[in-house]
Amino acid sequence: MTERAAAGLWVGVVSLFPEMFEAIARHGITGRAVATGRVALEFWNPRDHATDRHRTVDDRPYGGGPGMLMKVDTLRAAIHAARQRAVEATGQRPRVIYLSPQGRRLDQRGVQELASGPPLVVVAGRYEGIDERVVEADIDEEWSIGDYVLSGGELPAMVLIDAAARLVPGVLGHQDSAVEDSFNAGLLDCPHYTRPEEIDGRRVPQVLLSGNHGAIRRWRIKQSLGRTWLRRPDLLEGRALSDEQRELLAEFIEEYA
Amino acid sequence: MTERAAAGLWVGVVSLFPEMFEAIARHGITGRAVATGRVALEFWNPRDHATDRHRTVDDRPYGGGPGMLMKVDTLRAAIHAARQRAVEATGQRPRVIYLSPQGRRLDQRGVQELASGPPLVVVAGRYEGIDERVVEADIDEEWSIGDYVLSGGELPAMVLIDAAARLVPGVLGHQDSAVEDSFNAGLLDCPHYTRPEEIDGRRVPQVLLSGNHGAIRRWRIKQSLGRTWLRRPDLLEGRALSDEQRELLAEFIEEYA
Ligand SMILES: CCCCCCCCNCc1ccc(CNC(=O)c2csc3nc[nH]c(=O)c23)cc1
Ligand SMILES: CCCCCCCCNCc1ccc(CNC(=O)c2csc3nc[nH]c(=O)c23)cc1
Repeated sequence: MTERAAAGLWVGVVSLFPEMFEAIARHGITGRAVATGRVALEFWNPRDHATDRHRTVDDRPYGGGPGMLMKVDTLRAAIHAARQRAVEATGQRPRVIYLSPQGRRLDQRGVQELASGPPLVVVAGRYEGIDERVVEADIDEEWSIGDYVLSGGELPAMVLIDAAARLVPGVLGHQDSAVEDSFNAGLLDCPHYTRPEEIDGRRVPQVLLSGNHGAIRRWRIKQSLGRTWLRRPDLLEGRALSDEQRELLAEFIEEYA
Repeated sequence: MTERAAAGLWVGVVSLFPEMFEAIARHGITGRAVATGRVALEFWNPRDHATDRHRTVDDRPYGGGPGMLMKVDTLRAAIHAARQRAVEATGQRPRVIYLSPQGRRLDQRGVQELASGPPLVVVAGRYEGIDERVVEADIDEEWSIGDYVLSGGELPAMVLIDAAARLVPGVLGHQDSAVEDSFNAGLLDCPHYTRPEEIDGRRVPQVLLSGNHGAIRRWRIKQSLGRTWLRRPDLLEGRALSDEQRELLAEFIEEYA
């Protein structure tokens, strides 16, 4: 992996439920990326660092109250082992990410930052979270995937890894990547149609059957802009449109009214 | 499940990768909720509805261009089977949800809406998505989990299911649920501390060792408000604070400056 570290993505995962990550390590685009060595995933389970008979990984909060926290010694041992291995595997110091509802909200710009930097150690929390001094001492950045409450950091970690993996060169086939790089990054997608020509009386828009590639391209840009205007106007604010895009959006709005 | 339909959560999942859902069906809080029957998960794979030799589940887009779409007949057969089973299992018509980057952005309010309504059929897309006429004919609502691009709808579906499952009565232990119901819903959490009293020279805040439960409660509210003010001021806008909350936040800001 050392030679691949620059182009590839190395991720060390700290989690009490490493088996959950089979969802991305064994299936689909991420599964292939792992199988072909473009993405490296390694796991550290705090439970493997427990020395007591019950292999305890939780502990009570100072000040009382309901809920437990991740036990400090086993958590830190796992983070430190992952960090050391990141250096061995890639020659770089990793960025240590804690998935947390208190974190910076992930968006595609954040994914690009995370995918293009040093190797990652991602810490998935369970229970009520982790000790604040561990955040201060061992964590570089906290990230959240959205304003909803989940039962742990594993699904968020998988979301982060899946989104980042797609940006690694060679992970997407030519087909997919071409679409992603297209004009409409940051806009909603246009409607898509496939066989048959009629479904429950609904027909494919004529232009898509016309073979007129210029008209098809303009229709798609117009739909993409129009949908973004209808559903996610926030994505259009502060965004400069080209002359063509402005005209197509104006047409859409005109026809919509 | 019929008798449990009111209190429980029934979810039919339409996906080309049902095994990915083991991540939530076998582990942690959701795994226990499935094992105890509070959450029912059933799966429909479009591939099981394919009749050709290659069991094809993708098809080409009208109008050309890179990327494939989900094949219409196999997808619809799976959605229709899931919908019919939902009625049999719960006596209610399900809400059919398509996870899509074009959808309404999920937040905790949306999770509450989805968890408290009829049974759900969640459709996880792959490739570039699904035919727009299938959305019109078969989908009730489109939801997105955030502004980042993933390789399919499975992780988003699991995020939705995990967040909704936590709201089902009995799924969280008393401990966890108490925390969730507490004053600070919609605010960021306060810092937490557990053993030992000192980590790398950092000590636990004295108040948490004081045994003064009133002071501890106020400190936690103050930290929660302060952190939200620092990191997520958008969560405080348009939110009415109680007199006590206003005073505690003012103290935090005073000390911060
Ligand atoms: C407006 C959002 C406010 C969220 C406030 C949540 C406060 C509840 N604290 C207890 C708690 C700690 C940890 C979790 C587990 N969640 C994650 O580890 C997590 C990690 S990243 C993430 N992104 C969105 N949602 C999430 O729940 C997460 C769940 C509840
Ligand atoms: C500012 C966000 C703009 C997103 C625009 C994405 C347009 C790219 N279309 C191709 C595409 C289709 C389907 C996917 C798979 N994603 C989901 O099925 C998905 C389903 S819900 C969801 N929520 C956030 N992100 C997601 O990618 C998803 C990925 C790329």
